[in-house]
Amino acid sequence: MKKAVFYHAGCPVCVSAEQEMLNLITDKVEVEVVHLGEVKSRLPEAENAGVKSVPALVLDNGHVLHINYGAGIADLK
Amino acid sequence: MKKAVFYHAGCPVCVSAEQEMLNLITDKVEVEVVHLGEVKSRLPEAENAGVKSVPALVLDNGHVLHINYGAGIADLK
Repeated sequence: MKKAVFYHAGCPVCVSAEQEMLNLITDKVEVEVVHLGEVKSRLPEAENAGVKSVPALVLDNGHVLHINYGAGIADLK
Repeated sequence: MKKAVFYHAGCPVCVSAEQEMLNLITDKVEVEVVHLGEVKSRLPEAENAGVKSVPALVLDNGHVLHINYGAGIADLK
């Protein structure tokens, strides 16, 4: 099964994008949802994956999809 | 069946996002792909839907997901 990680920060833009994306994404992809505002220990992992802003979806092929714009990653530190 | 429209302009960011999104999106959603660089007559439709930049996915509930950033809509006119 393919995996993806959806990083967000609980902002309205994030919540809306999360709902839309989870509705769109096929059941064949397992999506882990990470709230970077609550789990700051995962900020380095997100940054290393190339996440510049939230919400963002990181795919298991290494590609990052930044979806709309809620907050910059620096604003979450 | 749900419908969505993926607007793009043939840019590398657009092509990459298109591939990723089409791979992710469930078969239950029919996605129309529109190349705004080639079909400029559909620019007003995209703008009215709220598309500010490409690539972008417009859902049939009216929400717009701007995915990464290839070009501003004004650059396509």
